[in-house]
Amino acid sequence: MKTYKVGILGATGVVGQMMLKVMEEKQLPVELRLLASKRSVGKEFTFNGETLVVEEATETSFEGLDFVLGAVGNDMSKYFAPFIKEAGAIYIDNSSAFRLDPNVPLVVPEVNPEHVYVHQGIIANPNCVTIIGLTAIAPIHRLNPIQRIVASTYQAVSGAGIAGMNELLKQLEDLYLNNEIVPQAFARQIVCNLIPQIGSENELGYTSEEMKFQNESRKILNSPDLKVNCTCVRVPVIQSHSISMTLELTREMEVDEVKELLEKAKGVELMEPYPTPLDTTNQDLVKVGRIHKDISADRSIVLWCCGDQVRKGAATNAIQIMELLMN
Amino acid sequence: MKTYKVGILGATGVVGQMMLKVMEEKQLPVELRLLASKRSVGKEFTFNGETLVVEEATETSFEGLDFVLGAVGNDMSKYFAPFIKEAGAIYIDNSSAFRLDPNVPLVVPEVNPEHVYVHQGIIANPNCVTIIGLTAIAPIHRLNPIQRIVASTYQAVSGAGIAGMNELLKQLEDLYLNNEIVPQAFARQIVCNLIPQIGSENELGYTSEEMKFQNESRKILNSPDLKVNCTCVRVPVIQSHSISMTLELTREMEVDEVKELLEKAKGVELMEPYPTPLDTTNQDLVKVGRIHKDISADRSIVLWCCGDQVRKGAATNAIQIMELLMN
Repeated sequence: MKTYKVGILGATGVVGQMMLKVMEEKQLPVELRLLASKRSVGKEFTFNGETLVVEEATETSFEGLDFVLGAVGNDMSKYFAPFIKEAGAIYIDNSSAFRLDPNVPLVVPEVNPEHVYVHQGIIANPNCVTIIGLTAIAPIHRLNPIQRIVASTYQAVSGAGIAGMNELLKQLEDLYLNNEIVPQAFARQIVCNLIPQIGSENELGYTSEEMKFQNESRKILNSPDLKVNCTCVRVPVIQSHSISMTLELTREMEVDEVKELLEKAKGVELMEPYPTPLDTTNQDLVKVGRIHKDISADRSIVLWCCGDQVRKGAATNAIQIMELLMN
Repeated sequence: MKTYKVGILGATGVVGQMMLKVMEEKQLPVELRLLASKRSVGKEFTFNGETLVVEEATETSFEGLDFVLGAVGNDMSKYFAPFIKEAGAIYIDNSSAFRLDPNVPLVVPEVNPEHVYVHQGIIANPNCVTIIGLTAIAPIHRLNPIQRIVASTYQAVSGAGIAGMNELLKQLEDLYLNNEIVPQAFARQIVCNLIPQIGSENELGYTSEEMKFQNESRKILNSPDLKVNCTCVRVPVIQSHSISMTLELTREMEVDEVKELLEKAKGVELMEPYPTPLDTTNQDLVKVGRIHKDISADRSIVLWCCGDQVRKGAATNAIQIMELLMN
């Protein structure tokens, strides 16, 4: 069996660390190289019982690698992409830098695995809301195309990385100890509060996070006319995102038909009456509940889904992409 | 100046206690009688510097009262209503027992004050989501009727009373101390989690809480054809509810026009870019932000609002109703 040489760019972050964990769980035939910024050099992590030491990511870090899993921000991703390509490795990028590039496949393996094979060295991992949302609803879309989505999200602090997770934990402590709460990672207090703005607003009043769900879904589903009105809200939850969705379909559909589709779908679990974020944390399935017809419109159904933002919403999806290419 | 004799039925609960506080703040000309179940008899509370002692609520508790403010559940409310009427007091009821009764006005003072005057001894206070949602959007509806609302709520634990608030605080402590978390007031853990089901589901898959927003809004706005598709979700927030709403209007409307209406509206504050639940807690305004056109449909706008569930969503609204009748 072939062993693949895999680099993790941004190996010390929440997503980078989860990539290690998921590859170990899956017992993938990989040999890892951990890459990060200078200040993390020398940090040690265990993978399959062996100690790996973090190296500095430089222009020459990618020689001899088959795959690079990217878990860094847009700027770093854009900077390193040409060097990864030059080294002949396939770059699976979790940032949004290349997602809408027509030469870059954007892939959710349960939804559009066929897109993965036509690439020019870069494959993009979608945004966490897109991955979790589409894993839940693509089985419906395939049979009965979705024309419009109205969504409100309930997004975990893990979406803001280690700083976001630490901030919620610190504020939980501050609240309990009656200390003053001073927001740092988020614009406002997040414990016992909500922040209805993720990313910056465009001229239409939508945030970058909200636009991703429409733009990425159009590309992944090959549906350039799909309309998505999404409101993204940060909630004091650690690691799983939830989405409340109303779907306008092409034709009327019964709830039992929807349930049947989801029961057969890959990567999805029908969980009645409903999943909560705790039910999807530390595992890879997107769980769906509260499925019912919309009393306010014809051809419209309503559902609720949850998924682990760090796993299926980021690390696991990237590794599933790599697995498709290994096979 | 006339002094009114006012009874609070359910004076020891979260809403009953807030009624005391709001009446004191407003310096209303009232003489209070605190009524509750047997086990609360003898409890003492201060009102305007005087000590009031809780009496047992019985069939004969209402003699000589001008108003009774109800802060008990449906069963108690239905039981006591005839005795309140017999005593000649006006019953302003916070339960859902009489809200849809055609002989009972259902009133949000900023929205339909004119309904309050035609009553038969009972006036109903709407559900907290209805009050907060309609205070925010009725100014739009008046000028440009809303045909359909798609809403997702983010509801504070105070909606489940003292037990709900104590449960979140206890679980915050348990989480910090690494104790096992055992849900009691809610079906599932609420700290760092979400529960997408409030009330019981009907045959259409909507919960009782979700149906209230449609049914009560139709009555309050005199709009029997208004369609509301609402998903109600409990979140780990103490006391303010938030609602993400998409409104399908009768005609296209510019964002500036919406903002202008809300800036002039009573009981509403435009708060840009957005309010959070903390911004509306311990005060009476409903705050609105994130107003933008819907990219997924014509004649449709999107907004976010927050309001204190215990105050404007319950106690303050009931007292505003009483004030209308005092004048």
